[in-house]
Amino acid sequence: MSVTAPAGFVAAGLHAGIKPSGRPDLALVATTGHRPVPAAAVFTTNLVAAAPVQVSRRHLVEDPSAAAVVLNSGNANAATGADGLHVSERTCALVAAGLGCAARDVLVCSTGLIGIPLDPAPFESGVPRLVDSLAGTPEAAGAAAGAILTTDTASKEAISLTSLSGGGAVTVGGMAKGAAMLSPAMATMLAVLTTDAAVEPRALHEALTRAVDATFNQLSTDGARSTNDTVILMASGAAGGDPIGFGGADIHILTEAVTEVCASLADQMAADAEGATKFVRVHVRGARSKEEARRAARAVAESQLVKCSLFGGDPYWGRILSELGASGSYLEPDRVDISYSGVTVCAGGEAAPHDGDALAKAMAGRDLDITCDLRLGLGEATVTTVDLTPAYIDENMRTS
Amino acid sequence: MSVTAPAGFVAAGLHAGIKPSGRPDLALVATTGHRPVPAAAVFTTNLVAAAPVQVSRRHLVEDPSAAAVVLNSGNANAATGADGLHVSERTCALVAAGLGCAARDVLVCSTGLIGIPLDPAPFESGVPRLVDSLAGTPEAAGAAAGAILTTDTASKEAISLTSLSGGGAVTVGGMAKGAAMLSPAMATMLAVLTTDAAVEPRALHEALTRAVDATFNQLSTDGARSTNDTVILMASGAAGGDPIGFGGADIHILTEAVTEVCASLADQMAADAEGATKFVRVHVRGARSKEEARRAARAVAESQLVKCSLFGGDPYWGRILSELGASGSYLEPDRVDISYSGVTVCAGGEAAPHDGDALAKAMAGRDLDITCDLRLGLGEATVTTVDLTPAYIDENMRTS
Repeated sequence: MSVTAPAGFVAAGLHAGIKPSGRPDLALVATTGHRPVPAAAVFTTNLVAAAPVQVSRRHLVEDPSAAAVVLNSGNANAATGADGLHVSERTCALVAAGLGCAARDVLVCSTGLIGIPLDPAPFESGVPRLVDSLAGTPEAAGAAAGAILTTDTASKEAISLTSLSGGGAVTVGGMAKGAAMLSPAMATMLAVLTTDAAVEPRALHEALTRAVDATFNQLSTDGARSTNDTVILMASGAAGGDPIGFGGADIHILTEAVTEVCASLADQMAADAEGATKFVRVHVRGARSKEEARRAARAVAESQLVKCSLFGGDPYWGRILSELGASGSYLEPDRVDISYSGVTVCAGGEAAPHDGDALAKAMAGRDLDITCDLRLGLGEATVTTVDLTPAYIDENMRTS
Repeated sequence: MSVTAPAGFVAAGLHAGIKPSGRPDLALVATTGHRPVPAAAVFTTNLVAAAPVQVSRRHLVEDPSAAAVVLNSGNANAATGADGLHVSERTCALVAAGLGCAARDVLVCSTGLIGIPLDPAPFESGVPRLVDSLAGTPEAAGAAAGAILTTDTASKEAISLTSLSGGGAVTVGGMAKGAAMLSPAMATMLAVLTTDAAVEPRALHEALTRAVDATFNQLSTDGARSTNDTVILMASGAAGGDPIGFGGADIHILTEAVTEVCASLADQMAADAEGATKFVRVHVRGARSKEEARRAARAVAESQLVKCSLFGGDPYWGRILSELGASGSYLEPDRVDISYSGVTVCAGGEAAPHDGDALAKAMAGRDLDITCDLRLGLGEATVTTVDLTPAYIDENMRTS
C-alpha cells in the first residue's frame, strides 16, 4: 500500500513504449472522481529545469490544486527545448481529457536520460489505457510505483497512519524513485505523496517543505539540484473534518506523518543506491548553528575521499577532520571529537586511544554512524550517505 | 634543474627514517650563504591547519623573509596537537642551528597521513646530514624534489627563464608534490619555488598569489583546502639590479615566469593523478563574470558523475548541463552550447547534430577539452581535472 492507502486516490502503471526494454514506464495517481484537491510540490532549484518541472510549476502557480499526477520513466524530457514543453503539455492534456478535468489540474513528472527528445507517441496510446486501469487497490499503487523506476532495483513505497487532535484518523502514503547521486545516471528523484486529510493549500505546502527539508534534503545526493527533482503531495480531504490550517496541533501532526513517509522513502533510496555497500549516517553536533552543522555534515558525506575510505572500511578520521575544516563552517580544531558508531577515534582534534576490536567491528558492518562533535554550540544535523565503489563507476561510466 | 637553477640556492634530500619504506623523506632548500632573502607563501585556507603551516605562517608574519625551507614526507603532522607544534618548531631550530640562521627564517612543510604523531627522532639525526649535503647542483635539486613525494610516481620540477625590462636575465625554478585530489590519501600539495630576481617582499607576494590563483587553484583538487597545502617562493636577488616593486613592467614579467613554473608543476600533478586515464580541461566562457565562470567550471570538473562519464569515454553532456545549472552561477538553459574537443554536442541547451566519428575519436583520447559557452557575457575560466576510476578507489580505500 502506498499512494492508494489514503481514501480518495486511485493509481495505475503500465508499459507505454518509452523504455525499449518493455518495462513499465508510465504511471498515474489521481483523485477518486478526478476532482482537483489541494496540492503542494517542491521542485529542483536547478536553473536547467526539465520541461515537466516547468509545466507542473506553472500549473500549481495558477492554482494550488491538482486532480492527478502523470509520471514517465525512460526519458527525463530535460534539455529538450520547445518540443519538450509541448510533449509535457500534451501529456497533461491527454490525462485531462481522459479524466474529465482541466489540463492545469494535471501535474507531470519525467525521469531518465537528459537531452534526448521525448517521443509523444507512447503517451497518445498509453494515457487512455492508463486512465482505464486506474484503481484504488494496493496492486494499482504498486504498478504506479514500479513504472517510475529507472536504475532502481526495487520499488519505494511507504505509509503512515496518525490521529488528529480531534481523534480523526488520517493516512499519508507515498512512492518514490531513487535520488540523483544514488541512481545517478538518471534525472532524478521523484516522489508522489497522498493523504486523506483535509488541508488548506498553504498549510499543505508548509507540511511538505518541512518534511522534504528534514528527509530528502538530508540525503547526500545532488538531491534538490538535478534537472527533474520533484516531490508532490495531494490531500483528498476524504477523512473529513475541518481543513487543517496553520493554527492548532494538527498541522504538526500532519507534518510528522508526511515526514515519516518521506524519511522511509529516503532510506529506501539510500538502501538501493547503485553499487553501495555501506549505509552511513553522518551526524554533526556542537556546531554554532543548525545551518553550519548541515554544511559540515554535507561536506563529510559528499567527500570522494571519505566515501573511498568507507568502502574500504578504513577508519581514517584525518580525512573527516580535513573535510570539516574546509567545509566553510566554523570550528576550532582542538575541540573536535570524531567517532565511528560510538568508538571515539579523535578527541580534541588528535588521535584518541580506543578499542581496536570494537572499531574493526564497527567499520565492518553495513550500517555505520559517523559522529563529529564540534563542541561549540547547539547546532546539529544528520546527513545520510553511501560509499563510493567500483560498481558505482561501472554503472555510471556509460549511459548506453 | 629546478630550485637550484636560479643563482643563490642550494638543496638536499635524503632518507631520514620517517617513511618505513626507506625512501627519501626529508628535503631542504636554502639560500647560498644561508642568509635570509625575501620570501612569500600561500597556505591552505582549511581551519584545520597542520602544525608546519601554523609555524611557517607565524615565521613569515614576523618577517617576510626566509633562509631555508625544510620539508618532510611520510607524515603530515596535522591533527597532532601541541606535540606536533613542538616537532615543527624543533625542526626549524635544528635547521637554523645547522645553517647558522635564526629559527624564524626557516619555513617548514610536511605531507603524509593526518592524525598520526610525528616522531622527532629522524629529524634530530637527519637534519645535520641534510645540511652537510646541501649543494647547488641539479642532482641536489632532484634529491630534494624526490624526498617530498608521497603517492606520486614521478618528481615534479620546472624552470622558467626570462628577461627583465632592463635586459637582466632572471630564472624561476620550482618543485612540487601531488595535489590533494590527485594524491588524495595524502595531505597534500606542496611546492617550493626559487628565483634569483631581486624583489621587494610585497611584490613577491603579489607575484606568487597571482600565479597560484591562475594555476594550482584552477586544478580541480581540494587544492587550497587540505590541511597542509603550502606554496613558497624565495627570491635570492643574486641576479642583481634594483629590487622589483609594484611599479613598472618587471613585476608582470616576474609574475609571468612564476606562473609558467606553477602551471608546469600543476600539469605534472594532474598527469600523475592516481588511477587517472583522462586529462581534461573544462573551459567555461560567456559567463556573466570570471567568478561565475570559475564556479561553473569547477562544478563540472568536480562532479563525480561527470568524472565517471569521462572514464567511460561517454559523451553524456546532459550531466554537464545539469552541473552547470546547479553550480550557483547564472545561466539561461536555452543559450548553452557544450562541445567535446571542438565537437558541439549541445547547442542552445538541446542536442545538436554532430559528426559521430569525430566525437568518438575525441572521447577516446587521453586529453580532452570540454567547452561550455553560456553566451551571456565575457567571463571565462579553465579548470583542469581527471576522470574517476576503479584504480583511484583502489588506491584510496585503505591508508595502511
